[in-house]
Amino acid sequence: MTVRLTGRLAQRDDVPLGDRCPIDRTLQLIGNRTALLLLREVFYGASRFDSLVKRVGVTDAVAAQRLRELVEAGVLTKEPYREPGQRTRHAYVLTTAGHDLLPAVLALLQWGTAHSSGGGPIVTHADCGEPVQVEVRCAAGHVVDEDDLVVGSRR
Amino acid sequence: MTVRLTGRLAQRDDVPLGDRCPIDRTLQLIGNRTALLLLREVFYGASRFDSLVKRVGVTDAVAAQRLRELVEAGVLTKEPYREPGQRTRHAYVLTTAGHDLLPAVLALLQWGTAHSSGGGPIVTHADCGEPVQVEVRCAAGHVVDEDDLVVGSRR
Repeated sequence: MTVRLTGRLAQRDDVPLGDRCPIDRTLQLIGNRTALLLLREVFYGASRFDSLVKRVGVTDAVAAQRLRELVEAGVLTKEPYREPGQRTRHAYVLTTAGHDLLPAVLALLQWGTAHSSGGGPIVTHADCGEPVQVEVRCAAGHVVDEDDLVVGSRR
Repeated sequence: MTVRLTGRLAQRDDVPLGDRCPIDRTLQLIGNRTALLLLREVFYGASRFDSLVKRVGVTDAVAAQRLRELVEAGVLTKEPYREPGQRTRHAYVLTTAGHDLLPAVLALLQWGTAHSSGGGPIVTHADCGEPVQVEVRCAAGHVVDEDDLVVGSRR
């Protein structure tokens, strides 16, 4: 069974709902606004609890809870570090799964820059200086329009 | 001022915070889980209130509130329709800004399929049948790694 997106599926009732949908599962893991802002800061290079709390502007308790959830979700991992004369603390760093969130984070950035007032930063490719964007492409390299997407069941 | 992502920014404090950040603004508009699930269903082709409520599995009141917010955010628009013998109702359809959320929605789908248990659908390109994915590329066509992203202020 395969279906095309956008308008042609108005009658379909066979697309995964709830826990069977990977979009929903992703949102259950990282769909909290504070969680995504913490991830944004980790992508920007922050890793220490105090720094994350300050940059996101939430309470210690809220940040601790969200960070615990992100670790449980396998997106962040805790790495011990110790400064001279201080007790051991933990830094939060991205796992492979966490790094794989980059397209989603950049897609949110791109949309907000284009469609909400206030603009946004320019993201460029270090090697060539050209602006970067998130694209929908197939393995053959074609840029794929929404009308040309086919969603098929994996099994 | 330009900065590179990932680990090299641990000391930076000049990246936009709060309302000045387009990621945050996007999440304020569409970061609610129910809102994104409603959008998912609109991308899949649903447009009528009853259909959206049923597919997302929320109450009428919650769906109505989220849909109102999505219309206010400029992501959906309401279009009147009328079936024979019934009063005029409204269908919810994507605006241009709404369609532009496709990369973000697909990026969430892609991540959930890869990194949460339960798998997900295969998304393919209708024309050539090849699997589709969300990629980070520059205007020169290079696939850009996270370490090669530069975030610069626009003004």
